[in-house]
Amino acid sequence: MTARCTNLPVDGGRLWADLMALGTITEPDKPYTRRSFSPLFLEGRDWLAKRFAAAGLSVRIDTGGNLIGRMEGARADAGTIMIGSHSDTVPSGGRFDGVAGVVVALEIARSLREAGRRLNCAIEVVDFLAEEPSEFGLSCVGSRALTGRLTDDQLAYRDPAGERLDQAIARVGGDPARLAAARRDDIVGFFELHIEQGIVLEQQGIDLGIVTAIAGIARVEIVFDGRADHAGTTPMDLRRDAGLAAAITSAFVASTAREAAAGGNGHFVATTGVFEQFPNAANVVPGKARLVVDIRAEDHAVTERFLAALDARSGEIARECGVERARFALLSDTDPAPCDTALQALLSQSADALGYLSLPMASGAGHDAAFMSHIAPSAMVFVPCRDGRSHAPEEWGEPDAIAAGAAVIHDAVLRLDERHNKTESEGSHAR
Amino acid sequence: MTARCTNLPVDGGRLWADLMALGTITEPDKPYTRRSFSPLFLEGRDWLAKRFAAAGLSVRIDTGGNLIGRMEGARADAGTIMIGSHSDTVPSGGRFDGVAGVVVALEIARSLREAGRRLNCAIEVVDFLAEEPSEFGLSCVGSRALTGRLTDDQLAYRDPAGERLDQAIARVGGDPARLAAARRDDIVGFFELHIEQGIVLEQQGIDLGIVTAIAGIARVEIVFDGRADHAGTTPMDLRRDAGLAAAITSAFVASTAREAAAGGNGHFVATTGVFEQFPNAANVVPGKARLVVDIRAEDHAVTERFLAALDARSGEIARECGVERARFALLSDTDPAPCDTALQALLSQSADALGYLSLPMASGAGHDAAFMSHIAPSAMVFVPCRDGRSHAPEEWGEPDAIAAGAAVIHDAVLRLDERHNKTESEGSHAR
Repeated sequence: MTARCTNLPVDGGRLWADLMALGTITEPDKPYTRRSFSPLFLEGRDWLAKRFAAAGLSVRIDTGGNLIGRMEGARADAGTIMIGSHSDTVPSGGRFDGVAGVVVALEIARSLREAGRRLNCAIEVVDFLAEEPSEFGLSCVGSRALTGRLTDDQLAYRDPAGERLDQAIARVGGDPARLAAARRDDIVGFFELHIEQGIVLEQQGIDLGIVTAIAGIARVEIVFDGRADHAGTTPMDLRRDAGLAAAITSAFVASTAREAAAGGNGHFVATTGVFEQFPNAANVVPGKARLVVDIRAEDHAVTERFLAALDARSGEIARECGVERARFALLSDTDPAPCDTALQALLSQSADALGYLSLPMASGAGHDAAFMSHIAPSAMVFVPCRDGRSHAPEEWGEPDAIAAGAAVIHDAVLRLDERHNKTESEGSHAR
Repeated sequence: MTARCTNLPVDGGRLWADLMALGTITEPDKPYTRRSFSPLFLEGRDWLAKRFAAAGLSVRIDTGGNLIGRMEGARADAGTIMIGSHSDTVPSGGRFDGVAGVVVALEIARSLREAGRRLNCAIEVVDFLAEEPSEFGLSCVGSRALTGRLTDDQLAYRDPAGERLDQAIARVGGDPARLAAARRDDIVGFFELHIEQGIVLEQQGIDLGIVTAIAGIARVEIVFDGRADHAGTTPMDLRRDAGLAAAITSAFVASTAREAAAGGNGHFVATTGVFEQFPNAANVVPGKARLVVDIRAEDHAVTERFLAALDARSGEIARECGVERARFALLSDTDPAPCDTALQALLSQSADALGYLSLPMASGAGHDAAFMSHIAPSAMVFVPCRDGRSHAPEEWGEPDAIAAGAAVIHDAVLRLDERHNKTESEGSHAR
């Protein structure tokens, strides 16, 4: 391991204090919960807005409901470097998922300003609205809006209490009637720090992951219809056991995913996350079974091949078990979002310069950066989290690990600003 | 198919009317439900007791809570031929399981009496108490009592409302303080008619099954403990997927059971009736999974070999999946109860004589006859039921099929009485 920088350009202690302070704003009996659109979410945002302002940033909420703190650059035409993530949580989530990326962005802007660095580009710190699946059944609401991808259909989604999403966006300070104004075309680079939510960095002793792509996610629902028979009286050769078909399919998912993952086409995983059989009683042959298979790939072609194999094999399994494959439905299928290779290279140089070990890796989880990649060069830095735990109260990242990620992005922002300056000097737009 | 007897010694129409009449005594919004110990159960029994009395039987409830109608024989020392089953149902059960066996027994006794047949043996018609698993968590309460197998521990079981089983037995007319008086040693033969609860007879076009043995039932609970990880971020080779271990185990249960069933050692089935994985969310690698495997065998040695193979293989599977097999517990393991070969032969002769096709077959389900086999030669006749449906409102047996079963038992009772008379004449006791 190379020697680490001990004199960071960011204040790790202050960053940590912000992170812990935001963690105290939670449903008291359900830590750590700050659901998007809730009063606690707004309380967290008020706190953040005050911290943004105290750091000398001009604070606003865009028409899509994103909280943004801005520091102007020296050159009005140089565009904006945006850094950030989200401050909302899942129910009973943690203090790091999303929030770490927001306070890291704040600390970078604050440090730059305190150091008297005036960049060519403007710097914006963003807290995207409602990244986690909200009560409206939609994730990444703010980054969809900021990239022109929040549709009228989605704005009409209602939560269980009957509020419409556009009403909720207006309630938190957005202006859905002027949603187009949230769409940005001035961003020359977007950086997001996030905990890994996995165990690769921790297990390999790596300081930082530099994300190559945010995996596409496909979800397939498979339903087998057999016959619920008496488990004692129905001979093995007269059964139509839907649970057995589901079990064989689940094993096929895992073995085929292992092969696909070893195929050298980047990150690939597939999981039978949902397995239900009915009536699920000890003395009844299962008459019905339902699986939901989650498939994530850095290369969508691998997903396509996997889906074709799963389709064919689950049909065969149904025939072998004498059951009907009543459903094979693609619930969703999003394309992978590649991260910008130039920004990845900058992050890698910054990590090297600061003495951190970094590893190129795909993100298996979805992030706001996936939407941002549609409108701007985007990149992500992963920091290790203990035991890979996430979306749980025990979610944890070490203070030094998060400070390291902040320092690397800080350095990459300077490099990008410098590069962009040169590019601008040469008379071409970054995008 | 041989020519069937068209002039039966029992009245099929009257038998059917009794069956349908008892079916109307049900929870009105949850047909067909007459749970043991409930007011509706007692209403059904009152109706039965009146029908027993109307048929000229002397009616009593024994100290174990069994409803018994008796017709004395010509010879006081000739012992008793008992026929019957149970009148309680599972929740939302059918009109045949158990009940058919009780009304068939009543019809046989009634027909014998009407025909002026005075047998050497006494005839008893029995409605065993609480054959189905009751709110006390115990099945075959009455046949346990009648065979001296209801323990003090079991008498202390409580239902969810807090009533003790002995109190409930007293409430329905039993006398648990004098439970030993229910234990019988005078029964020279026991016959029980039951719907098959399977599809073998129907699929093969056979009129009657003559039960060779009531399978022993073993239940095993297997729990795998793995690690609930993010389905997107956790590489395939770092997973500890408890759901996968359960799926591979479930497939092993089926394939190994098929081999065992084909092994020529009588009826054998095994079923993964319960399959649960946790948290069972699409985007989470299952961290825990639980199976309950139901194993039924005519030959207990096959069960023992199966259990040993399942124990070994599920341990290997756990290691292969990187999970812990946290539990492998035998929840229950009852011995098979062979039916009496002499009574089987009588039933076979009777079926032949009346022109019915019969098939020796094991019972995969448990029955009161399994307990009765401990104290008396016992035999069972299965009649076909539509689509094998049972424990459900659509449970159905054809009137002719049930009448055929009644006629065959009627004939076998006469043969047994005759044989027993000869045996008695030769100066030896039947048991």
